[in-house]
Amino acid sequence: MFESLQLFFQRIDNSKVFQSFIIFVIVVSAISVGAHTYALPVWFENVLLWLDKAITLFFLIEIIIRYVASKGFKDFFSKGWNIFDVIIVVGSLVPLAGSSVFIARLLRIFRVLRLVSMVPELRMLVNALLKAIPRMGHIALLMFVIFYIYAAIGSMLFSDINEVLWRDVSIAMLTLFRVATFEDWTDVMYETMTVYPLSWIYYLSFIFLTAFIFLNMMVGVILEVMNNEHQAFIDEQTPEGDKPATQSQLNEVQKQIGQLTELIKQAPIK
Amino acid sequence: MFESLQLFFQRIDNSKVFQSFIIFVIVVSAISVGAHTYALPVWFENVLLWLDKAITLFFLIEIIIRYVASKGFKDFFSKGWNIFDVIIVVGSLVPLAGSSVFIARLLRIFRVLRLVSMVPELRMLVNALLKAIPRMGHIALLMFVIFYIYAAIGSMLFSDINEVLWRDVSIAMLTLFRVATFEDWTDVMYETMTVYPLSWIYYLSFIFLTAFIFLNMMVGVILEVMNNEHQAFIDEQTPEGDKPATQSQLNEVQKQIGQLTELIKQAPIK
Amino acid sequence: MFESLQLFFQRIDNSKVFQSFIIFVIVVSAISVGAHTYALPVWFENVLLWLDKAITLFFLIEIIIRYVASKGFKDFFSKGWNIFDVIIVVGSLVPLAGSSVFIARLLRIFRVLRLVSMVPELRMLVNALLKAIPRMGHIALLMFVIFYIYAAIGSMLFSDINEVLWRDVSIAMLTLFRVATFEDWTDVMYETMTVYPLSWIYYLSFIFLTAFIFLNMMVGVILEVMNNEHQAFIDEQTPEGDKPATQSQLNEVQKQIGQLTELIKQAPIK
Amino acid sequence: MFESLQLFFQRIDNSKVFQSFIIFVIVVSAISVGAHTYALPVWFENVLLWLDKAITLFFLIEIIIRYVASKGFKDFFSKGWNIFDVIIVVGSLVPLAGSSVFIARLLRIFRVLRLVSMVPELRMLVNALLKAIPRMGHIALLMFVIFYIYAAIGSMLFSDINEVLWRDVSIAMLTLFRVATFEDWTDVMYETMTVYPLSWIYYLSFIFLTAFIFLNMMVGVILEVMNNEHQAFIDEQTPEGDKPATQSQLNEVQKQIGQLTELIKQAPIK
Repeated sequence: MFESLQLFFQRIDNSKVFQSFIIFVIVVSAISVGAHTYALPVWFENVLLWLDKAITLFFLIEIIIRYVASKGFKDFFSKGWNIFDVIIVVGSLVPLAGSSVFIARLLRIFRVLRLVSMVPELRMLVNALLKAIPRMGHIALLMFVIFYIYAAIGSMLFSDINEVLWRDVSIAMLTLFRVATFEDWTDVMYETMTVYPLSWIYYLSFIFLTAFIFLNMMVGVILEVMNNEHQAFIDEQTPEGDKPATQSQLNEVQKQIGQLTELIKQAPIK
Repeated sequence: MFESLQLFFQRIDNSKVFQSFIIFVIVVSAISVGAHTYALPVWFENVLLWLDKAITLFFLIEIIIRYVASKGFKDFFSKGWNIFDVIIVVGSLVPLAGSSVFIARLLRIFRVLRLVSMVPELRMLVNALLKAIPRMGHIALLMFVIFYIYAAIGSMLFSDINEVLWRDVSIAMLTLFRVATFEDWTDVMYETMTVYPLSWIYYLSFIFLTAFIFLNMMVGVILEVMNNEHQAFIDEQTPEGDKPATQSQLNEVQKQIGQLTELIKQAPIK
Repeated sequence: MFESLQLFFQRIDNSKVFQSFIIFVIVVSAISVGAHTYALPVWFENVLLWLDKAITLFFLIEIIIRYVASKGFKDFFSKGWNIFDVIIVVGSLVPLAGSSVFIARLLRIFRVLRLVSMVPELRMLVNALLKAIPRMGHIALLMFVIFYIYAAIGSMLFSDINEVLWRDVSIAMLTLFRVATFEDWTDVMYETMTVYPLSWIYYLSFIFLTAFIFLNMMVGVILEVMNNEHQAFIDEQTPEGDKPATQSQLNEVQKQIGQLTELIKQAPIK
Repeated sequence: MFESLQLFFQRIDNSKVFQSFIIFVIVVSAISVGAHTYALPVWFENVLLWLDKAITLFFLIEIIIRYVASKGFKDFFSKGWNIFDVIIVVGSLVPLAGSSVFIARLLRIFRVLRLVSMVPELRMLVNALLKAIPRMGHIALLMFVIFYIYAAIGSMLFSDINEVLWRDVSIAMLTLFRVATFEDWTDVMYETMTVYPLSWIYYLSFIFLTAFIFLNMMVGVILEVMNNEHQAFIDEQTPEGDKPATQSQLNEVQKQIGQLTELIKQAPIK
């Protein structure tokens, strides 16, 4: 009985129509989220409210179908994207029980993210991005150390010049991030140069360290990851026989010829 | 009768002189378009008006020559660049029938684009660019999702702080594009930080997601496309015999030697 | 007696616990440095002061342990990172003898840098960065020549227009660095264009030379260094036998076969 | 008599000391050029004036030595860098005959550029850069077409809104270059959006076309040139025998074995 239901749900889950319909519902939910930000007549607001509830219900049913169609609890939650979907759907369910409208709307916005988990191409893109994160982690840490040291020096030297920009180490880090994006960084510099005429060294060395060198390193890491993916793709596509001959193969050939020579040398004697 | 005309037109179409003359006329039309933007004496305006009409006529004749010289309707319109040329030439014809001067001038500006379809090097460049578009499509979609979610959150939280920047989701997306280009983004941030002191998280996470990671991904895709083109070019240039020996070739050699050994082993017995 | 101490110290130095504890102390010292920038109650300032002294003492002991555990003076100071550590630790010691609080705090900030020398991944990152410096040196020199020439021209032409931006060659170089980062560069340009309407040539040629071409060259150099590292890594991972067969190896095979042929040709005569 | 002089001059020209001294004089001339931009006492100005004359004379003598040491007129002027040197030296000579002090100083600034022609590493860098120019030429042309079309549309639509930014096609191109560098581009956009609310399409499409796609293409071209240089360098370094075995070589081996088999097949019959 349950098995026939499971088979039926699996057929639904795998059908193109069902998947397209889910994407359609996600897009509708995205438009509904966007529509909320405009000033709308009351009756339309009510329509949107009912639409939201319908979408929430649909997503709940869809997750249940997908769960039943799966090979059990372990199999279902072993896929990261399923966990992602469940969290978003359950997250948008919670506020239905009551609580503030504000949080409810905020959680409903994240339903747009389901587009990423439903469209295979977007899922692949995000996977590729996630792979690059561990390698970037160390660069981010090094960046943080540099930001922290400059922020500590900056707030020590400049906090009396401009309270708003250099009050403490966390505010100074925000200011330095602004400098790193070149956003009106000369205004920040000219101000401190009136007291410390040599403070341009502070800014220029910081800009060279962060904006130039480290940003480039990040580009390097990302390119490397992309190259690896590209290389793996090429390796997969080239049939084994079309790969360049290896040195060990050639050694094999040389050994064969050597044995042959030995054979001939002994042959005439026989 | 028609065939001799076709042959004659083909000779014109293929002649270097004719092609150079077309490029010359396009440049003249570009200069005329530019000249229109300056304050000119009335007699000169009239000269430009007649020049424009002459250029329109010339382009029309040129397209007809090219059409007659082609192998028929299907052959002519199978080339994207021919369709491009016809649209631009017909587009600049339409307003002659009357209507506003404004639209007429606007359409005439696009005639400068014919330079791209006439100079082979530019045509190749644009072709290479167009090839990169499908791959960038998914990145653009992912970008749009991120922009949309941040814009929805932004207009929800900040619309009461600054109506001009965060009124609704579309205006908020424009503001976020501004933030992504680092254009006075701190002014936008400092304003919202007076109400929500933690809103810097919103901006910094957005900047990290878009400006840093995704821009780099785009660079990656473009580089990959370029590398592929470069690789294809190298593969084409290297003669077959200069390519690295493949493993399957070497297996062939080993089989040959094996057969030879077999032959010798049997030979002495004979 | 000394040897058993050395062995004991070596065991301490190599233990994971000790290394983790050093990193923990560095993080504590970093937090202490950051905490100093906030307005704190007096008793907490005193706690931090004692904490600082304790950290200084700990670092001193740690360096001594590491020195004793090493194979002597030469071996210890042959490693760049050891020299780096000693300078930072001794640097933070000096002010204890007296002098200004300001310098003492500044030197203590640099202790955060020890995180780089203690975490292997950060050390590798910085090493990779240092390798790229000699290659970038020449680009930096070329950049400096261009900046210098433009600054000399700029201060000659524009010093009467704006004293603050173009007073002398060094101030002009700072202004040009601002232009190179696109920071309000049009304000600088529009000002000089009121006197020299053609001065946009000066700015545009400068921007093209520096921002576009040279920045890209830097990216190129960095990518090359990264590629080299990546290549070296791949070469290391591929076992010798899996590398593509070389032409000299194949020549060897051909010689072998030649000798074999010679042997057979002579054999029947025997 | 002349030949011994030539030999003597060649020895001077090739000596490390002479070349180092030239670089020293260039650096002195650069410092002198920079010193002129500061407010100096009259006596020091006079010293600099005499120094300038001495440097001019030295450069003249140096060029004559290099010319005499060369294999004649043709050989000397076949090297681009020699022409470059002669133009700069003669250029700084001309004003000595009289004319304005302004031009004289301007021409003397360019003597700093001789550093590029004297230091081999800088000369190589500039050579690499020059190689990339022809490939970038077409991209620059395509860029110019896009700028021109947008400028024509811009000055047509927006010239009534802001005369200063959109007066005619050339001023509009300068404004668009500003937009392409993201320099206060939102100020330009918000102004035109008050009249044409949809003009954001104009700016966003322009930014996407230029800043994003084309800049990346430029990066691509430069990287390609760099890769080529790098590849050529690797090809040069790898000894012929260490290159991967080619397919034609392996075909040769197979033919050899085939002949050998033929030989053995016939041998027993004999």
